[in-house]
Amino acid sequence: MTSIGIFGSMGRMGMAIAELAPGLGAQLAGGADVGDDPADLARKSDVLVDFSAPAALEAHLAAARAFKTPIVIGTTGLQARHHALIDAAARDVAVLQTGNTSMGVGLLARLVRDAAARLGPDWDIEIVEMHHRNKVDAPSGTAQMLGEAAAEGIGTTLAEAAVTDRAGLTGARASGTIGLASLRGGSVVGDHTVVFATAGERIELTHRADDRAIFARGAVQAALWLAGQQPGRYAMDQVLGI
Amino acid sequence: MTSIGIFGSMGRMGMAIAELAPGLGAQLAGGADVGDDPADLARKSDVLVDFSAPAALEAHLAAARAFKTPIVIGTTGLQARHHALIDAAARDVAVLQTGNTSMGVGLLARLVRDAAARLGPDWDIEIVEMHHRNKVDAPSGTAQMLGEAAAEGIGTTLAEAAVTDRAGLTGARASGTIGLASLRGGSVVGDHTVVFATAGERIELTHRADDRAIFARGAVQAALWLAGQQPGRYAMDQVLGI
Amino acid sequence: MTSIGIFGSMGRMGMAIAELAPGLGAQLAGGADVGDDPADLARKSDVLVDFSAPAALEAHLAAARAFKTPIVIGTTGLQARHHALIDAAARDVAVLQTGNTSMGVGLLARLVRDAAARLGPDWDIEIVEMHHRNKVDAPSGTAQMLGEAAAEGIGTTLAEAAVTDRAGLTGARASGTIGLASLRGGSVVGDHTVVFATAGERIELTHRADDRAIFARGAVQAALWLAGQQPGRYAMDQVLGI
Amino acid sequence: MTSIGIFGSMGRMGMAIAELAPGLGAQLAGGADVGDDPADLARKSDVLVDFSAPAALEAHLAAARAFKTPIVIGTTGLQARHHALIDAAARDVAVLQTGNTSMGVGLLARLVRDAAARLGPDWDIEIVEMHHRNKVDAPSGTAQMLGEAAAEGIGTTLAEAAVTDRAGLTGARASGTIGLASLRGGSVVGDHTVVFATAGERIELTHRADDRAIFARGAVQAALWLAGQQPGRYAMDQVLGI
Repeated sequence: MTSIGIFGSMGRMGMAIAELAPGLGAQLAGGADVGDDPADLARKSDVLVDFSAPAALEAHLAAARAFKTPIVIGTTGLQARHHALIDAAARDVAVLQTGNTSMGVGLLARLVRDAAARLGPDWDIEIVEMHHRNKVDAPSGTAQMLGEAAAEGIGTTLAEAAVTDRAGLTGARASGTIGLASLRGGSVVGDHTVVFATAGERIELTHRADDRAIFARGAVQAALWLAGQQPGRYAMDQVLGI
Repeated sequence: MTSIGIFGSMGRMGMAIAELAPGLGAQLAGGADVGDDPADLARKSDVLVDFSAPAALEAHLAAARAFKTPIVIGTTGLQARHHALIDAAARDVAVLQTGNTSMGVGLLARLVRDAAARLGPDWDIEIVEMHHRNKVDAPSGTAQMLGEAAAEGIGTTLAEAAVTDRAGLTGARASGTIGLASLRGGSVVGDHTVVFATAGERIELTHRADDRAIFARGAVQAALWLAGQQPGRYAMDQVLGI
Repeated sequence: MTSIGIFGSMGRMGMAIAELAPGLGAQLAGGADVGDDPADLARKSDVLVDFSAPAALEAHLAAARAFKTPIVIGTTGLQARHHALIDAAARDVAVLQTGNTSMGVGLLARLVRDAAARLGPDWDIEIVEMHHRNKVDAPSGTAQMLGEAAAEGIGTTLAEAAVTDRAGLTGARASGTIGLASLRGGSVVGDHTVVFATAGERIELTHRADDRAIFARGAVQAALWLAGQQPGRYAMDQVLGI
Repeated sequence: MTSIGIFGSMGRMGMAIAELAPGLGAQLAGGADVGDDPADLARKSDVLVDFSAPAALEAHLAAARAFKTPIVIGTTGLQARHHALIDAAARDVAVLQTGNTSMGVGLLARLVRDAAARLGPDWDIEIVEMHHRNKVDAPSGTAQMLGEAAAEGIGTTLAEAAVTDRAGLTGARASGTIGLASLRGGSVVGDHTVVFATAGERIELTHRADDRAIFARGAVQAALWLAGQQPGRYAMDQVLGI
């Protein structure tokens, strides 16, 4: 039975993964948090999952690399230098990084890229998301992931196309841009809608997460899948077979 | 038969009003645009409607006042000083100013104020709107009107409560705020949703305008209603009887 | 401290109420299920809540009446004869019956009745709901409750106005009817939308339940409120103060 | 310049096509309605479009076949025997039949089939549509087209999988079924949503038609594309290149 080691085991996701893993055919190798030795966990696990913090990523990747233990990274708030670290580690060990481990979001990203590519420049793209009142950043990592999928579909990048400050005298909408808007309130787990709008018609592609368990379940599925893989960088699509 | 004079008669709303008015039991006294004499139109009309520009408001109000011709003001982009001019004119003539003349939006504003007042501070309030790609300002006047209704319901003002720049490291949502987000694309006439969210549940109150004719129809109804009123400042609720 | 007795204590709602009650300032007097003596529970409780089955209602009401113990009834699937039993019991003891104990649904019903009454006959009314795949009846009790609120607003009853079989050659929509449609799938806790549609515009009033705890919480609040009331039949609006 | 002949030229779609065609690079060969000779129109047109009635289809196909004039069929309410007639005609002339000529719906059908195929049997599929109060049949032709796409994705047919009578004691949802629900009201041009729901999450794929012109525009585009094609049966996807 595959044994999973959890970085960030006391966080909300870490605890949810520990709870779900046995029912999904995995066993727990243990957990590590701030102050624990990452190498110790990497040595005794078949695969690692990391839902901790960006600051800990470098040490976790080093441990994974040292023991050739594949690692799933679900930590959010990563920046360019973190992605460079991941790419480097992926030369020696299997690494899967994702902003969202749910099957529904994985498929939605695919549909968004496909739609953006086929609809063409007469269709404007807008993204709106809603999360609970305690979320501290905006737009959500998932909204950014969907924005990247849309941007890829129209042959650009989200960094080029994103508009996140639409307030005041904005002027008419610039063609080729992607608007992102964020709502916050209550205990909403996470809703995302990508709107494609042209003269006379609209397409709206929506994902609603009703239960955080979907993310933990997806993370365990990703870990089980990654356990047997060769070194390299992988994505959630491959796990989901979508 | 009540005769309506139109300021801004060559604009999109002015033309729509001219087209619809005869079928709604009104006749056209004429129209005036930049360069025309407002007094001439005010003299020969039973009631005026103004869908022109903020810069012309002072002259239009003076003409209405001089001839005691009631005036419906649907011009958007008004500021505090325009409202002061309206209040002054309303001492001598009936004036109705509104950000949206549709019956549905009028009712929605009422429902929003009612809901905000009854739900209490555990329910967060967010507003999202979508309009066509050529709209040059954000949030829409109607979103602001709905925001004012919500603010009134919770005992504050939109100026105090509004959050329109939710991007980046925002921190957790502050209690008592009202978020406003704007989407732009295609030819959308105007969709507005006010979301109330608390632990475990949400209420969403939405208006969708599918056809601009609803605004012209509401403006004519407002004009017919205002034609017989005493001096004073009126609002759309009174026309709609809601 | 108010002590609550639960009929149907082993059901999903009964267990949720038992779990939440202590945190909301109540204590548990005990529970009763099929085969237990209702009188025993009624005697030792300050207030009863019943989330069992219609077949048990008569015995539960008799026990509540015998010991003058107020009773909250959340059992669904009630028919005319059950309501007659409730009315009879309410002559001697406080009874509150409701199809939905959430604050949001309580407010939504009020907004729906208000909107229906003010919009008038040119606005068509439609209701659509979605629940999880294991729900065995349709439309939901909450959809029916919203339908009654709408019907009351337009001066009719849901029994008169309801259309639930719209498939095939239906002919044009009959004025004054209320359509009800039901979707089933996944684990959806309960979404309800009431649509008001006229020429060129629509209003949509939606409630989304993300967590079943809202219903248990509302039932406890109702029980605490009802504990001190005089004999009579009460409704959720009064508890919520909306 | 391609000349288009319109069967059903006095109907709503026929008139819209006649109005739009010149601006899209086509010219009108003429129109035919009940009582006119189809052969006459087929002879003088480069391509035909048919938005008339099922009863006239056989004669229109015969005329198209006799003069080798390609024909776009947008008539709704077709049955199995009409499809057999189309297949027979397609041996001699290019025929394109579709339930919806908008680009957005064409793409949505593709996304629905793709999603259904990839998500697998744990995801329930439901379709809900809304149209104006004068529509006389339900579910809409477009809802059926989307249902067929979903059914194809899960390896069945809509005839096998459709559930359109969900009211009363329905029992739990049967796996592998596709629910279809219809709302009617106001002047709604046509909204369609396909919901995919599983434990803890949902995907909703929506199309909103705000303006009937999109259908006429798509029909003209289809006609221009079909004018140069070899005999055979074609679909809207091919026109749209999606």
